[in-house]
Amino acid sequence: MFALRPLVAVPRSFARGMCSGSNPVGFIGLGQMGSRMAENLVKAGHNVLAFDVNKDAVNKLVAAGGSSAESPKAVAAAARVVVTMLPSNPHVRSVYCGADGILTEGGARDGSLLIDCSTIEPGVAKEVAAEALARGAILVDAPVSGGTPGAEQATLTFMVGGPKDAFTDAEKILQAMGRKIVHCGDVGMGQAAKLCNNMVLAISMAAVSEGHALAGRLGLDHKVLAEIVNTSSGRCWSSDTYNPHPGVMDGVPSSRGYTGGFACDLMVKDLGLATSAANASDPRLGLPFGSLALQMYTLMSAHGAGQKDFSAIYEFLREVPKGK
Amino acid sequence: MFALRPLVAVPRSFARGMCSGSNPVGFIGLGQMGSRMAENLVKAGHNVLAFDVNKDAVNKLVAAGGSSAESPKAVAAAARVVVTMLPSNPHVRSVYCGADGILTEGGARDGSLLIDCSTIEPGVAKEVAAEALARGAILVDAPVSGGTPGAEQATLTFMVGGPKDAFTDAEKILQAMGRKIVHCGDVGMGQAAKLCNNMVLAISMAAVSEGHALAGRLGLDHKVLAEIVNTSSGRCWSSDTYNPHPGVMDGVPSSRGYTGGFACDLMVKDLGLATSAANASDPRLGLPFGSLALQMYTLMSAHGAGQKDFSAIYEFLREVPKGK
Repeated sequence: MFALRPLVAVPRSFARGMCSGSNPVGFIGLGQMGSRMAENLVKAGHNVLAFDVNKDAVNKLVAAGGSSAESPKAVAAAARVVVTMLPSNPHVRSVYCGADGILTEGGARDGSLLIDCSTIEPGVAKEVAAEALARGAILVDAPVSGGTPGAEQATLTFMVGGPKDAFTDAEKILQAMGRKIVHCGDVGMGQAAKLCNNMVLAISMAAVSEGHALAGRLGLDHKVLAEIVNTSSGRCWSSDTYNPHPGVMDGVPSSRGYTGGFACDLMVKDLGLATSAANASDPRLGLPFGSLALQMYTLMSAHGAGQKDFSAIYEFLREVPKGK
Repeated sequence: MFALRPLVAVPRSFARGMCSGSNPVGFIGLGQMGSRMAENLVKAGHNVLAFDVNKDAVNKLVAAGGSSAESPKAVAAAARVVVTMLPSNPHVRSVYCGADGILTEGGARDGSLLIDCSTIEPGVAKEVAAEALARGAILVDAPVSGGTPGAEQATLTFMVGGPKDAFTDAEKILQAMGRKIVHCGDVGMGQAAKLCNNMVLAISMAAVSEGHALAGRLGLDHKVLAEIVNTSSGRCWSSDTYNPHPGVMDGVPSSRGYTGGFACDLMVKDLGLATSAANASDPRLGLPFGSLALQMYTLMSAHGAGQKDFSAIYEFLREVPKGK
């Protein structure tokens, strides 16, 4: 455990002009999410200095108006604000604390603002934030909700954990990539909010899937069920915005073979983080539905559907009898 | 199994003037839901002729402007449209087919419209509808969503199963008691829609409850979690309209000790009907989340909370450690 330094000790000079074209904003991690987010930063007029191990992704961003650096350390040396969007705990540890990492000598400076948008364990966010503080930098965790469509359209929700002043500064950057930016509390609380939300999502998608599976067996039309649920007490995002039954809605993964959404394996990852965080916080906290969700999405992945959108849990649960 | 008579064979004369004060609308079952619904029929100008085994409930409706009859048969003899709102399968069988029942000699006539708003098995609705047809009457199943507040404010959703013409006639009556009246298909499909919706609801309430239980352990503020979930992919009625954590919302059961809502025991009943209907329709349909929900709400009831609102599943799942 560590205590945050008093807020007054945090240098605030970086906030001046940090949105101008002359002061670059660093961006590390140009995957499915990060590449779209970085492009929105460019569109908003930021001078984006990027790094990724995938050179094609870097070249694409440079073509869109960004520039590139040769390592996370080089990004952090040139940019007083650095955004990271990485797959999981080990990548965050490596990009921040590994060789040529953001927090190595010659990298982030006193007063740097580090915004980690990855989804990781709250404990790892706290750990890296402590290392950042030791160098005079502030790390806020800012995981997102909204998937690749939200990243593309700059409509993401950011769940931010960190000191209030750092949140206010981070907000100025994040608003180029999202629509809603919420301060969730101290560092790690952004991750807590994300994991709790995604556990609710995983379970409610399974709920809607079982509802449609049962409706199909009882002879109830799927569009009728969706109309009922969407105006009744079963109303939820999984039914009214991301319906898992093919044909109920257009433009959602279920209407295109469960492609192009939020992969089952990413949900397995988030549910693993949630149940692990639960156990670490209090071994007496049972999560019967969250645990069942972890088991079911894991089984779905084991049956070969790990790269499909998580709403394909519907296919897995409904077990369509032959000929139906 | 039975086949519906051709629609053209259904006498349509009852539709003439059935909303006028001179032609009574029958109402049987003045419980928590039925009493409020019947009062809304009175307020809408209907001459409501009621029966209930509870004389106090009948007297209250008479004081509100209704009138009373001595049996279901007497109601059906005087009213060409009869609404029933009863606890479960056996009560529906008894009120329709038992001694002095709606469908006994001298009761419902050729052309009567019977609207059963009870939540029962789709199979029982089909069975009673067949007996009604044998007497020339039409029964539609029309279970509701919206609970006692919806019954009070006439904002219920009605899920109606039956022939299209009978639906159109029933709609004229139901609009005095609800805001949304949906034709779900043939007789029994109203029940199917209700059971599927309530299974989704039971599971998503458990999902939100586990989300808040985990948030509490991780140190995340409950109002912050609700704000996140309500604008993200975990959004659902159980979080944004009926939040189970006390104090997140006003005017919901969790803010008043989990009283005055939809009792856990009623949810156990609906989940029992859903899983039973699933098994009857196809023994190969697994419902892991629906089955877990049935088990958890049943355990909650066994632990003494059967009469609490179903959102008290939060108290049951969170297992607050001493001193927290």
